[in-house]
Amino acid sequence: MRMIDLIAKKRDGLPLEKEEIDFIIKGFTCGEIPDYQMSSLLMAIYFNKMNEEETINLTMSMRDSGDILDLSSIKGIKVDKHSTGGVGDKTTLVLMPMVAALNIPCAKMSGRGLGHTGGTIDKMESIPGFTTSLSLDEFTKQVNEIGLAITGQTGNLAPADKKIYALRDASATVENISLIASSIMSKKLASGADAICLDVKVGSGAFMKTMEDATKLAKLMVKIGNSLNKKTIAVISEMDEPLGMAVGNSLEIIEVIEALKGRGPKDLMELVMCLGTQMCKCAGLNKSDNEIKRMLEESIANGSALNKFREFLNAQDGNVDVINDYSILPTAKSKYEVKSVKEGCIKHIKADVIGHASMILGGGREKKEDSIDFGVGVVLNKKRGDYCKKGELLATVYVNDEKNKEQALSEVLSAFTIVNHEVLKESMIKKIIE
Amino acid sequence: MRMIDLIAKKRDGLPLEKEEIDFIIKGFTCGEIPDYQMSSLLMAIYFNKMNEEETINLTMSMRDSGDILDLSSIKGIKVDKHSTGGVGDKTTLVLMPMVAALNIPCAKMSGRGLGHTGGTIDKMESIPGFTTSLSLDEFTKQVNEIGLAITGQTGNLAPADKKIYALRDASATVENISLIASSIMSKKLASGADAICLDVKVGSGAFMKTMEDATKLAKLMVKIGNSLNKKTIAVISEMDEPLGMAVGNSLEIIEVIEALKGRGPKDLMELVMCLGTQMCKCAGLNKSDNEIKRMLEESIANGSALNKFREFLNAQDGNVDVINDYSILPTAKSKYEVKSVKEGCIKHIKADVIGHASMILGGGREKKEDSIDFGVGVVLNKKRGDYCKKGELLATVYVNDEKNKEQALSEVLSAFTIVNHEVLKESMIKKIIE
Repeated sequence: MRMIDLIAKKRDGLPLEKEEIDFIIKGFTCGEIPDYQMSSLLMAIYFNKMNEEETINLTMSMRDSGDILDLSSIKGIKVDKHSTGGVGDKTTLVLMPMVAALNIPCAKMSGRGLGHTGGTIDKMESIPGFTTSLSLDEFTKQVNEIGLAITGQTGNLAPADKKIYALRDASATVENISLIASSIMSKKLASGADAICLDVKVGSGAFMKTMEDATKLAKLMVKIGNSLNKKTIAVISEMDEPLGMAVGNSLEIIEVIEALKGRGPKDLMELVMCLGTQMCKCAGLNKSDNEIKRMLEESIANGSALNKFREFLNAQDGNVDVINDYSILPTAKSKYEVKSVKEGCIKHIKADVIGHASMILGGGREKKEDSIDFGVGVVLNKKRGDYCKKGELLATVYVNDEKNKEQALSEVLSAFTIVNHEVLKESMIKKIIE
Repeated sequence: MRMIDLIAKKRDGLPLEKEEIDFIIKGFTCGEIPDYQMSSLLMAIYFNKMNEEETINLTMSMRDSGDILDLSSIKGIKVDKHSTGGVGDKTTLVLMPMVAALNIPCAKMSGRGLGHTGGTIDKMESIPGFTTSLSLDEFTKQVNEIGLAITGQTGNLAPADKKIYALRDASATVENISLIASSIMSKKLASGADAICLDVKVGSGAFMKTMEDATKLAKLMVKIGNSLNKKTIAVISEMDEPLGMAVGNSLEIIEVIEALKGRGPKDLMELVMCLGTQMCKCAGLNKSDNEIKRMLEESIANGSALNKFREFLNAQDGNVDVINDYSILPTAKSKYEVKSVKEGCIKHIKADVIGHASMILGGGREKKEDSIDFGVGVVLNKKRGDYCKKGELLATVYVNDEKNKEQALSEVLSAFTIVNHEVLKESMIKKIIE
């Protein structure tokens, strides 16, 4: 088999066989197939697409390119959760203690973030003492003991995906649904959970801008997961404005704890309830959606979810006092108010613009090597559909380094679109695909 | 400007501007743009094509990536000739002495060959003593003195093309008309001639299989040449069977000398006359096609073309005795006859199969580093349209190393298609584009 013939085959619109895809992924991972051949194949895939069978085979090849974690020592059905990424998305940290409070094991491996804010791991690290580098043994032991652990990626999971992703990023071949789906699913499949619950974001602040694209991606990932014997469900949720009110690491941790205390923003809680219900179903909880939803609400009302969060902090060496004293968290030196320059109804808050403002203040990474300033970020005071007067507070911006302050403030203001007619608040949840 | 944005632009079907193409070619030539970005751009070009303006700009950028030869010290209008490559193509070596005999300066820079047989340079090197590495000074001086010189490439011409071609070859992006045209024309434009006469081959033994593709390529190259102020003409000629009777280096030199003595095969001479006429017109000879043709025929009949060939051999240190004694040339140890296994009319002789047989006997290079066995090859005894009896001689195969003999013999036999009805001999010349 020769790589050049396989590039020509895909270029000419023919599907690649399983053995051909294996040859490509193995050869590329070990360095026998050079970057320049892989990038021309990726561009040919961009144009000629991959069918479902090819995409499933590609996912398997990438999954098998490195370690596959064995979580069988954890009792019960382990459900993993993955989001395609959005601004202000702290869902995992509210959701997992609630689900764990219902005695469903939550074993989550999470990445660091590039862009607006850190990933889940970065957010947790804003809590003093909290450790996110558990060994596989510590990880499984903790899930068995308290039902919940979140760690940074352990082991060498899907190295082929890592190498291919870097190349796609540099060769303008990111935007292909088969490549996106196989990239996400190969890592999820390698990290050893029994079932996978996916949160596919759609809208101007998400990678998938239209319902059509988001639906295609969600269906394809569900198909891949189920084909490879992992129960998989996808929720398509809206990402047209930031999720919740807070964007930034410490600021989001405060919102998480508030949510566990029963004071979460409406949109965040709607998404948490929906994903929680699907996770419980994936884990085999044999009840109706309404019953599960009631149980999840009860976990907030009776304090068992907050209690689970406390156990979780304690197990991973985080300072549990944070639950009652937010001043323990890293904070920003100054805060600035962004006020409305006109009266009307908020039609839109550009999530990517708010995310960018947070990033340039130091809240997110532009490059992998960048460090994160946990204290900075943006807290919205208004959401879509809200009415505001001229001069009324739209958002508060938390700043440490004044260098990019002016730019951040003007970006935050520019993110708001205010109109002089009423704007309906819509449901966060667009579709559930299983 | 960022390469990633330019890849995405072409991927999305937008034309690239002149400055963008310059940025890409400069960056790639000096190594700032990595192979993997260039190959993904090339694949995007494969799918989304380039328009005429982009192709002309690409050609200029590649021409300007290295030396541009100054042949202004050569008196008169210098015409270069280029063939897109065919099996048994020794046209240049018959044509140039004829044109030079009419006092039109022929300054030809030629490459070595990959494939069936060597290039023009390799063929000439089968003549004992002949040197093909003239300095630019020697080259121009010789053209001024005797009107004819052929040398291997001198200077660093179009290095961008060399680098891009290697990448195209490894990334399945050779087959794009803009990339083919700009590759050929950038080198021709850098080598300093005043006018360019192109021989575009079409047919099963050529790179362009159909008249449609060959016409597109020819038109595009003529457009590029004329746009950049070099008078350019293209002849589209057939390459469905080998050109002439001989395929192999010494064997083709014998055919060249025989042709200059007035005993050239019909198809070869038809092409030589046509290209010769166009070259003379490019060089400004102000006569009708018929008059030019008569003058060229006269150069054979009166011995002036053969005489020019003798001067040319002498000037480049070749043994001129070869003209009357072919035994001076490297010869093969053994020759084998391939005979017809049935009676009928020759419908087709697969040029690429005959070429491959010659190559595996050592007559051509598979890799750049391979050396050439000048003596080996194939001499046809029949051409398309000829009648043959069962057992009649189809071809003679000249062999030194017996290793691939059997394969070569069976390939030569398999190249012939014999049918039991009459086959018309068609004209070699399909179209002239100017």
